[in-house]
Amino acid sequence: MNACILAVGSEMLTPFKVDTNSLLITERLNGVGIDVRMKAVVADDIDEIAAVVRGALGWAHVLIVTGGLGPTEDDLTREAVARVLDVALKMDEGILEGLRERFARRGLVMSDNNRRQAMVPSGAIVLENRNGSAPGLMLTSGRTDIILLPGPPREMTPMLDAVIADRLAGKRGSGGLFRRTLKITGRPESEVDAVVQPIYSKWVHQAVPISTTILAALGQIELHLTASAPTADVAGSALDAAVAQLREALGPSVYSVDGRPLEAVVGAMLKERGMTIAVAESCSGGLLASRLTDVPGSSAYFERGVVCYSNRAKTELAGVPEETIRDYGAVSEPVATAMAEGIAARSHTDVGAGITGIAGPDGGTPEKPVGMVVVAVTVAGATKVRTLKLFGGRDMIKFQSAQAAMNMLRLMLM
Amino acid sequence: MNACILAVGSEMLTPFKVDTNSLLITERLNGVGIDVRMKAVVADDIDEIAAVVRGALGWAHVLIVTGGLGPTEDDLTREAVARVLDVALKMDEGILEGLRERFARRGLVMSDNNRRQAMVPSGAIVLENRNGSAPGLMLTSGRTDIILLPGPPREMTPMLDAVIADRLAGKRGSGGLFRRTLKITGRPESEVDAVVQPIYSKWVHQAVPISTTILAALGQIELHLTASAPTADVAGSALDAAVAQLREALGPSVYSVDGRPLEAVVGAMLKERGMTIAVAESCSGGLLASRLTDVPGSSAYFERGVVCYSNRAKTELAGVPEETIRDYGAVSEPVATAMAEGIAARSHTDVGAGITGIAGPDGGTPEKPVGMVVVAVTVAGATKVRTLKLFGGRDMIKFQSAQAAMNMLRLMLM
Repeated sequence: MNACILAVGSEMLTPFKVDTNSLLITERLNGVGIDVRMKAVVADDIDEIAAVVRGALGWAHVLIVTGGLGPTEDDLTREAVARVLDVALKMDEGILEGLRERFARRGLVMSDNNRRQAMVPSGAIVLENRNGSAPGLMLTSGRTDIILLPGPPREMTPMLDAVIADRLAGKRGSGGLFRRTLKITGRPESEVDAVVQPIYSKWVHQAVPISTTILAALGQIELHLTASAPTADVAGSALDAAVAQLREALGPSVYSVDGRPLEAVVGAMLKERGMTIAVAESCSGGLLASRLTDVPGSSAYFERGVVCYSNRAKTELAGVPEETIRDYGAVSEPVATAMAEGIAARSHTDVGAGITGIAGPDGGTPEKPVGMVVVAVTVAGATKVRTLKLFGGRDMIKFQSAQAAMNMLRLMLM
Repeated sequence: MNACILAVGSEMLTPFKVDTNSLLITERLNGVGIDVRMKAVVADDIDEIAAVVRGALGWAHVLIVTGGLGPTEDDLTREAVARVLDVALKMDEGILEGLRERFARRGLVMSDNNRRQAMVPSGAIVLENRNGSAPGLMLTSGRTDIILLPGPPREMTPMLDAVIADRLAGKRGSGGLFRRTLKITGRPESEVDAVVQPIYSKWVHQAVPISTTILAALGQIELHLTASAPTADVAGSALDAAVAQLREALGPSVYSVDGRPLEAVVGAMLKERGMTIAVAESCSGGLLASRLTDVPGSSAYFERGVVCYSNRAKTELAGVPEETIRDYGAVSEPVATAMAEGIAARSHTDVGAGITGIAGPDGGTPEKPVGMVVVAVTVAGATKVRTLKLFGGRDMIKFQSAQAAMNMLRLMLM
């Protein structure tokens, strides 16, 4: 089965914004054996939306349209689809009542423009939106299922998952594309590719062929495996074998085979061991604490964090001796070690992490250039410290610093 | 003049890769007054490439196709365009000779598949590629200029710039598209739209027409204004007037008219006033500190941050009296106030911020549900505190909490 994805919104035709919804939609459609053959973005223009919808009806089994369902005058997806299918738009009293209630719950009176969101093309099934006001819609024309979803990802994603489970998963032909993602940190892309290329190049020709894509960013590499197989079970066995080969070859630098981010992997390890953590950060500016606390339930192990930008804060909050800073400088292994050990001692936690460095763009010197970052981790009294040379802008240096601290901790806990 | 951008390549229809060439192409086309009205991505399939090309000939003045010009069998852009225009493909001896020389310079013999790259649709102008082997091509059909460019950005970009300078800049109507972005926080989208719609709806018909798009996410709304004008000066005056009208109508909820994020706006205000800041965070988990320190040069005003997840940490790090937590609960206005005032006092800063709340998904109660967040900000001894009801997942509640704290500070500093 073939799909077309259409994103509606003039803002996505500016130089500033790219349609990322289509990546998640593609992943979900592939998961039930539906291949995406075309993606398009058009402006908030009824003729232009209608032209793409009309074109897709000629060949697509599934057409997913995101955006243009909101309350404003330039939300025109409903009108365009009704025009192509030559059906009337009618006010749906159930939706209207739901909208009124939604506003009332927040102590607001619904403004009149919201009534647009209750207009439904005749024959459409209404898809509930639990996270926003615009409901989704599903229509059928010939062999094409047309699914209209709101643009914001947090509204769109659960609605897509529901419509796939309820309506699309059953309709697919046998077989499909099944994927697995390995996440790797602590090694450069070229090294990872040199290790894995001889392995994955053979998979293309096996009974259940698997194709492999490497996606590299600073601080993180992902290997995406895609198996084409008649059933999920057949694909699963082939992918399990492939993942096992890669893990064998790459060793502990693989931190996730189930999509979880590093903070969730490390968090689960801490929880399993009944350990608690406290962190002291300078150049990462709170990003390590923020990533660790992105994980639901992290309050079970995350005790506290301190962001000690100034030298005085390093001493007051993490107990770094003034003379250590004076003798070695704020960006040094003794200071990072004192931060990790000091924050753990003061917080009575099993684990402490310390990060100090130069995130740039200013503040570098020939001896201590921008991107020099020192990371220390202490676990139950044993401390490791590493000096890193990182590349990229300020945000990437912050990200990689936090990544390195979590990866050191992961390896120490293994 | 209107443009369509088509990216050819099956890899861009996987869940892992997005077409980013189109952002640069859009910027360059906008710069010479050409509006991008549609973007599409199709697989390496001759019928599918041809369908989009055929569709664009109906309305586009410019069609830019990237990718599918290489030497392999799945590079089919040349064939598809020749089919739509009903012209023959001919071997271009000049290109072939250039390819042979290119390989010879590197001490290589050209493999036979490279001959494909010398095939040219009859009537095409050849565009030189200084950074790769595949030349570009330009053809005209009716009112549409069709420009075929290679996919790799370092090959594509200089060729695009050359063809725009040589061929498109002169043909355009005079003028270009000029943009301005307003960022707004603290008000819901429907309310902002109700205020601004009567204003911007008139701009479409004025001498220098301005079109407006609203982009809303939790905690932030953007208004994108696009003026179509003969010169940057003319556009600038019209946009200045438009921005002034919107600021007047929206008041202080507009925090940026130059693209800067809230943390940069607040940071600049602190710097200007020679003030310093310290923050104490519970449910936002360090995100406020991390966003404040995302700004280059923030060490001039950011003194420290503490992430006090546990009650003990709130007392030890921010000086919140134990009895305040006992009497009112950790998520309460007295505790948030004590966090803001305590961290400022201990750090000797002018400004303190305190955030406490329930980020979820667990930990909510009927009295204090998930999304209840209390934010306090103290500036030179005067403190304000607000209790918020936020929606969305854990990450969005964290984001909005940090956003609310920075916005309160901004309004207090104004």
